[in-house]
Amino acid sequence: MLLKRWLVGDPIKTAQAAHERLSKRLALAIFSSNSISSVAYATEEILLVLILAGTAALAWSIPVSLAILFLVIVLTISYRQIIYEYPQGGGAYIVARSNLGEMPALIAAAALMIDYVLTVAVSVAAGVAAITSAVPALFAHREALGLISILFIVVMNLRGARESGRFFAVPTYLSIAALTLMVVVGTFRSFANSGVALPPLSTIGPDGAMENLTLFLILRSFAAGCAAVTGMEVISNGVKAFRPPESENAARTMVWMSVILGSLFIGISWMAYHYGIMAKPDETVVSQLARLTFGSGVAYYVIQVGTMMLLVLAANSAFAGFPHLSSILARDGFMPHQMATFGDRLVFSNGIMILGFFACLLLVLFQGDTHALIPLYAIGVFVSFTLSQAGMVRRWLVKKGLHWRKKLIVNGVGAVTTGIATVIIAVTKFMQGAWIVFLLVAALIMMFRTIRSHYKAVAEQVALSRDARPPRPRRNLIIIPIGGVNKAVIRAVDYARSRGGEVRAVLIDVDKEETAVVEIKWAQWGCGVPLIVLPSPYRSILGALLDYVEENLEKDPECWITVVLPEILPARWWQNILHNQRALLLKGALLFKDRVVLTDVPFHLTR
Amino acid sequence: MLLKRWLVGDPIKTAQAAHERLSKRLALAIFSSNSISSVAYATEEILLVLILAGTAALAWSIPVSLAILFLVIVLTISYRQIIYEYPQGGGAYIVARSNLGEMPALIAAAALMIDYVLTVAVSVAAGVAAITSAVPALFAHREALGLISILFIVVMNLRGARESGRFFAVPTYLSIAALTLMVVVGTFRSFANSGVALPPLSTIGPDGAMENLTLFLILRSFAAGCAAVTGMEVISNGVKAFRPPESENAARTMVWMSVILGSLFIGISWMAYHYGIMAKPDETVVSQLARLTFGSGVAYYVIQVGTMMLLVLAANSAFAGFPHLSSILARDGFMPHQMATFGDRLVFSNGIMILGFFACLLLVLFQGDTHALIPLYAIGVFVSFTLSQAGMVRRWLVKKGLHWRKKLIVNGVGAVTTGIATVIIAVTKFMQGAWIVFLLVAALIMMFRTIRSHYKAVAEQVALSRDARPPRPRRNLIIIPIGGVNKAVIRAVDYARSRGGEVRAVLIDVDKEETAVVEIKWAQWGCGVPLIVLPSPYRSILGALLDYVEENLEKDPECWITVVLPEILPARWWQNILHNQRALLLKGALLFKDRVVLTDVPFHLTR
Repeated sequence: MLLKRWLVGDPIKTAQAAHERLSKRLALAIFSSNSISSVAYATEEILLVLILAGTAALAWSIPVSLAILFLVIVLTISYRQIIYEYPQGGGAYIVARSNLGEMPALIAAAALMIDYVLTVAVSVAAGVAAITSAVPALFAHREALGLISILFIVVMNLRGARESGRFFAVPTYLSIAALTLMVVVGTFRSFANSGVALPPLSTIGPDGAMENLTLFLILRSFAAGCAAVTGMEVISNGVKAFRPPESENAARTMVWMSVILGSLFIGISWMAYHYGIMAKPDETVVSQLARLTFGSGVAYYVIQVGTMMLLVLAANSAFAGFPHLSSILARDGFMPHQMATFGDRLVFSNGIMILGFFACLLLVLFQGDTHALIPLYAIGVFVSFTLSQAGMVRRWLVKKGLHWRKKLIVNGVGAVTTGIATVIIAVTKFMQGAWIVFLLVAALIMMFRTIRSHYKAVAEQVALSRDARPPRPRRNLIIIPIGGVNKAVIRAVDYARSRGGEVRAVLIDVDKEETAVVEIKWAQWGCGVPLIVLPSPYRSILGALLDYVEENLEKDPECWITVVLPEILPARWWQNILHNQRALLLKGALLFKDRVVLTDVPFHLTR
Repeated sequence: MLLKRWLVGDPIKTAQAAHERLSKRLALAIFSSNSISSVAYATEEILLVLILAGTAALAWSIPVSLAILFLVIVLTISYRQIIYEYPQGGGAYIVARSNLGEMPALIAAAALMIDYVLTVAVSVAAGVAAITSAVPALFAHREALGLISILFIVVMNLRGARESGRFFAVPTYLSIAALTLMVVVGTFRSFANSGVALPPLSTIGPDGAMENLTLFLILRSFAAGCAAVTGMEVISNGVKAFRPPESENAARTMVWMSVILGSLFIGISWMAYHYGIMAKPDETVVSQLARLTFGSGVAYYVIQVGTMMLLVLAANSAFAGFPHLSSILARDGFMPHQMATFGDRLVFSNGIMILGFFACLLLVLFQGDTHALIPLYAIGVFVSFTLSQAGMVRRWLVKKGLHWRKKLIVNGVGAVTTGIATVIIAVTKFMQGAWIVFLLVAALIMMFRTIRSHYKAVAEQVALSRDARPPRPRRNLIIIPIGGVNKAVIRAVDYARSRGGEVRAVLIDVDKEETAVVEIKWAQWGCGVPLIVLPSPYRSILGALLDYVEENLEKDPECWITVVLPEILPARWWQNILHNQRALLLKGALLFKDRVVLTDVPFHLTR
């Protein structure tokens, strides 16, 4: 408990909840790291695909990057409309549920949940890659570094939203500044053609190109680069977390985020193209660019550490999104109710821990390799983009209202654009692993529906009917099974007698002599409770007891039967194996009997 | 349950217990397989050691075998005295406990328990070796064959003693007969020097002898051969299982067993020496002898299958001894009480299953190889032999009585002989693995003593003092924590009200609106039970409840508090994850509070 307090801090009162709202500056740090950090690997993923068609194909990285920039702009404009329309938070699930119905909503929810887990895994893997680029000796330990990072974020998040925001704001801004400086200096030099000597474009290995430069290959590089756009929906989910006026502040933060994202992404792509940088297995593209721009001095290390922090913090935004989505789903009955439980610190502890667990699992399965994870990534996000935009289109068509035609066109463009991107991603990545995502989405939807139908069935079964009346009082027969007379047994008798009802102690006669001894002791200690001695020809204590209970249940089909068990509670856990084995069997046998209630009366041992 | 009945049969009444006694013929089958079966590997183990000094050293197998025969004779005579002196069963533990004190008794018990497990593992491994000698294709599957055999014996034993005796009698006698026939025919031919051509003694591999023929080596071969004597104590443990006059019948059975054991063992050793048989990794000595005697026809296969059955049945006698010893230890408080519980079929089910588990574990650890297990074997048995004989010596010195000097000399010779053998075994096998046995003995003794001291502490803590009086009736406050009003809650209220005491429903106010709804519903459905609404500034339902319980405990330092929890019992196990998570936390928090008793009132869902 003390450890928990130290790690996650003191509990917070409900009244304080309003003060947990985020200023724009804090919100930008918390919500933008997810999307901005993707510049650390998006360009690299584009180059990794294009290089398959030889170095000449690398020139295509510029048009591909521009296409992705176009996506960023479209998404920014369309999401601003969602932010204003859903000030309570307009995640894809909510927008789809209120405009398109249950099935599209569940698809969006499942796709998003999978992508939250992937965001954590990909970001942490890429963050670790930034560090191992700078310190190659750590390359062998990248899995362990990733796991430690995830654990760190989990603990930070259990401490609560605002504090983690504070904790994360400084490094976020620091790394954005460092990356911006690199892009500005690098781009300026590339136009001035001064300073750094340009290395010649080298050919790829002895074999040269491995594939032809087909349209499919270009689309594949576009799909890989779409990882840059992931995380743009985060702000629309969290409008409620902003200070009032919430929508206004959120929309502005969104624009800022997109401007930073777009310029860094295009800048890095341009520099990579201009300086002829190629992806290497053990050094990231950003690391190579930083070395070119600043040499291997302090500035280089600032960039690398900054990138790493930004990426690790990106994982953090998923830790806000995932538990939030889970809690909305839990309130709608699609997830276990406990997912909707506030933790001590106003955050959704269960969701945070589940997300952390699955992200660690994924990291271990894919051995902490960003490139191995990328094929699974982005598809979920784009499915949810498309569903939100389609939902908004439907909304304007049904609701109409002020300027609805203009708004319809904006979201329509968004829906069509993201729809096309989704199809491209799905088709080009399908064989590389996206099929796993489709399977998982299907499995999650099945889980959601199973859980909901169970809760519905429960609600029907426990619902009180209007015309029913409260039950009349019934008889209660209390049975205390005893094997001897000692303090634990007398304690149980004392307890049973302290409440009303007909109390009987029951002894199973296994050994005549012992039975006689117990009967004599009972006369002194039994507090006047009658002792029933039951014969047991088969020496089965359990069987004889069960028969007795059954018999009494049949005698009075209305009555309750309470079985009061004297239970010895050992002082140490391993001592449990030496006690109460019979009580355990009895509990198992009685659990499914209607009208039978079990009560343990613990006797606490001190040694 | 049905499966259990089909596997282990119907329960048996206590009154039938007397009829479970064994006739001499059945007893010989059940108790002798352990010792007689060791002829299947004892000679081989002697040869395996001697061959290290080259083929000429093999001649030493005859004097070594004669020394072991001498041991058999000494043990038979001394154990007869134990059988008459302890008609209730005189295992080493009982003899040592009543004559030498607790520590020697525990050493004997620990040594015996380890040897029971080893008996099962060694016998089954050797039995499987008999089969794989005949069908080499099965050699790769010897682990699996061993595990299946152990499982088979476990199930047979759970069916009860007499039936397993019947089941085992026929194959036991069959295989003794087959082995006897082989020894008679083989020995006759060896003296007649007719029939089979003697193969020349071949030298061992290209290197020849690997060690010099030292006294140590000869003693090592003696120690290895001592495996032949294991199991001779089994009858003295089980005198009670014989029909009256128990001691008379047991003593006669013991003599029969020793005669069969001694003649088979010496016969096989003689044949092996005479025909120049050497141990091979994939064919047993007995298999080679059988081939020489009968060729590879039907008679050969009868010998092999018979040996296998005898060995697998040998494991069976450990399944009588181990649970029996455990139950005696359990009655003395050195083992968990549940080990003393009769199973349905008058056998000690817990012990049978534990023995089966550890034997399987050992078999897997040593990959089903007899030779790998042998160094651990016999040491435990000889420690217990020595302790029993020493105990008897002490007994005659203290008790005296009729012919006590003669009896003293018999057991004295037994004690000295087995003592010397024990030292030889311990010294020669120590480095080969016997040290593990010593460690395990120490660990088991620690376990015995820890368990006993715990039970003692418990007995002291629950003991009723002579001058104390039965407790006076106390107040009982019943608290029903509710989160809403439904059938499950009303059921709990109905239950609580059916007994006396002051009943209160408690609602934690997390959401004002919801609280108001519950209050209105409660007016209709609450059966007149007052509803207490508790504020919870930290939204912690658990914390507010615990505070309330604590407060009431302090208000009246005498009263009981009963927390009645409405619990939803799902129809399927996986649905449990969707319910009662909060109840579980509450239970955990209340378990260690004195004077607080928890009662679950289950509401059974049907779908």
